[in-house]
Amino acid sequence: MEPSGSAMKPPILAGLRVVELGAFIAGPFGGVALASLGAEVIRVDPPGGGIDINRGPRFEGRSLYWGGINQGKRSVTIDTQTEQGRRRVVRLITAPGEGAGIVLTNLPVAEWNSYEELRKLRPDVIMVVITGQQDGASAVDYTVNAGLGFPWITGPEGHDGPVNHVLPAFDVMTGYCAAMAIVAADRHRRITGEGQLVEIALADVALAAAGHLGYIAEAILNPEPRGRNGNDVYGTFGHEFATGDDRRVMVLGLTARQFRNLVEATELVDEMAALESRLALDFRDEDHRWRARKQICELLEPWFNARSLADVQVALDEHGVLWGPYQTFKQFVMEDKRMSEPNPMVAQVKHPGFGTVATVASPLRFSGADAVPPQPAPTLGGDTDRVFRELGVEVEP
Amino acid sequence: MEPSGSAMKPPILAGLRVVELGAFIAGPFGGVALASLGAEVIRVDPPGGGIDINRGPRFEGRSLYWGGINQGKRSVTIDTQTEQGRRRVVRLITAPGEGAGIVLTNLPVAEWNSYEELRKLRPDVIMVVITGQQDGASAVDYTVNAGLGFPWITGPEGHDGPVNHVLPAFDVMTGYCAAMAIVAADRHRRITGEGQLVEIALADVALAAAGHLGYIAEAILNPEPRGRNGNDVYGTFGHEFATGDDRRVMVLGLTARQFRNLVEATELVDEMAALESRLALDFRDEDHRWRARKQICELLEPWFNARSLADVQVALDEHGVLWGPYQTFKQFVMEDKRMSEPNPMVAQVKHPGFGTVATVASPLRFSGADAVPPQPAPTLGGDTDRVFRELGVEVEP
Repeated sequence: MEPSGSAMKPPILAGLRVVELGAFIAGPFGGVALASLGAEVIRVDPPGGGIDINRGPRFEGRSLYWGGINQGKRSVTIDTQTEQGRRRVVRLITAPGEGAGIVLTNLPVAEWNSYEELRKLRPDVIMVVITGQQDGASAVDYTVNAGLGFPWITGPEGHDGPVNHVLPAFDVMTGYCAAMAIVAADRHRRITGEGQLVEIALADVALAAAGHLGYIAEAILNPEPRGRNGNDVYGTFGHEFATGDDRRVMVLGLTARQFRNLVEATELVDEMAALESRLALDFRDEDHRWRARKQICELLEPWFNARSLADVQVALDEHGVLWGPYQTFKQFVMEDKRMSEPNPMVAQVKHPGFGTVATVASPLRFSGADAVPPQPAPTLGGDTDRVFRELGVEVEP
Repeated sequence: MEPSGSAMKPPILAGLRVVELGAFIAGPFGGVALASLGAEVIRVDPPGGGIDINRGPRFEGRSLYWGGINQGKRSVTIDTQTEQGRRRVVRLITAPGEGAGIVLTNLPVAEWNSYEELRKLRPDVIMVVITGQQDGASAVDYTVNAGLGFPWITGPEGHDGPVNHVLPAFDVMTGYCAAMAIVAADRHRRITGEGQLVEIALADVALAAAGHLGYIAEAILNPEPRGRNGNDVYGTFGHEFATGDDRRVMVLGLTARQFRNLVEATELVDEMAALESRLALDFRDEDHRWRARKQICELLEPWFNARSLADVQVALDEHGVLWGPYQTFKQFVMEDKRMSEPNPMVAQVKHPGFGTVATVASPLRFSGADAVPPQPAPTLGGDTDRVFRELGVEVEP
């Protein structure tokens, strides 16, 4: 019997304490990413809640968004319209502790909570500030996305006009960037003893993604950058098919082997070979699959149309095809085995305000640290007195 | 004169050395996020390149995707089909050094490069493994997205069928998660002396995002979760308008003040008040704006349709409206001031293979560490001999 096997290990970010002054997504998402890995995250809101306290989706009047993005945090309410409230926030941020002295915000920074002011009370403070644009101007996921070009290549082929993504992708990326920045700055402080100011613009995070994925270079170098290809996967083989029982599936052949598996699963080996020879193409080459995608789909389509989702699943899984069913969110929570079978990332959790519901944990699993189980969000302001007491922030006159 | 002001400071992740065994997006994106913050990232590919070496978009036959996602890395080619090649990779990963002994992979892990094998040579090794599903099964951004429900709420209102996002959002999030995991595990190793295995599934990263944003709870609790709302922003006010010169703009009123600014900019104060009173609503409440969005848009539309983009810009900026123009990628690189004016995140960089092009740096700015300027990708295999020499990995028989 190995005692280390069952011993409790602290979660990976145990010992970090982060004060969060946030609203909407990017800042609070950074906070929840840290909290779900064991950091102590203290969210500060005005009494009654911030501007996002009632944000939809809601259930019986309670914000499910607020309940999701604040999981595992502690909630403190302070009125920063008063001098006393401002002093308290500053003292909360700069309270002593090796892994403390960290603030994350995506709200406008004022004089009283500026990095320079905080440094006066705690010289090694770490402050992460998220803005919309690099110059501090406002921007949100929707405007950043509009400006970069993605909406013109998203959506059905032939559609006239831009199509926004609904997932606030750049917000979530920025949240993870902010979480990474805090861990990196804490590492730096452990090595050098020095704190710092970290600045991150939502628009810059989006630009970095577009740049590293080749979109920027493509737009500069190619006279005609890629167009709109519906649900097809650009540059290789990936297509949406309808099944006989009116479901949809996403089917891919990103690699030569994946494509061969698909052709074998659908018993179209001879037909596909004939197509290759007729077009003088070699479908082991992703570019050739891309060029012939319409003809390839014509061959595959009847196979999918003639089968139920259940039959498609059996045949594709048997041959190791890369595919997945389209599901609505309702279908996901009702049908997907990730929700019905034991899953360390999901548990039934009782949330103040809207009851017991399946709730997520961090997607990161560290062998050297215990996972934080799925947590509820706090009651707004429910930790105020306790946090003040613990950190010695007095309720001064 | 403060000497510290102009002194060179090492980049924030200086001293970390990460060996990357990756392909496609999630793993290599994690690598580029680390490299752009100053970590030494050594990408290992088979001679001639991995399966993604020619991935589109391309320019004159060279992959712009490969050139973007490998910026700032060192490139080593090793044939892991041979015993000697495998030994070399293992020695590269486990070579000594305080911030070394780290491997990031999103490729299938074999016996020879398993965490247990690596530990034998370096007990404090850190290994981050990205898979598709939590059980190791394959999944990619397209299948994960299809399964979660986003495609059914993305796209034009009334469209029949799912609409995929084109931005590989979950891949990029997973890359940032992996980068964060490495910094967190390095911090843990500094404190405890212990390495570890970190596992991250693309599907879990997506599930965490959906959970924290309230989509999962909404699908469980509400009989009718949200539907498809085109480019409108769910739950508040945000809409796409066409201008008189055939451009499109995304205009938002997420907060009461932003909405008031919009109403004032478009000189519709009286009309909007009349609408509120007719509908018995209060547009300071985001939910009321959402319920009346069609009528609000009807009031606003003629104003946008009658003006050029340039005139719209002047009026909206003057009133501090939250908005942005839709731009294609081509328009972004040609017109956006982030590309034309001095921007520390963008520089002209010469890339081996496709020439000089505007190239991005990390979106994170640390006051206590110097930024890594925008970097080119390496030549495939161009660092092989030098890396082997530096790390003492011999070209053994």
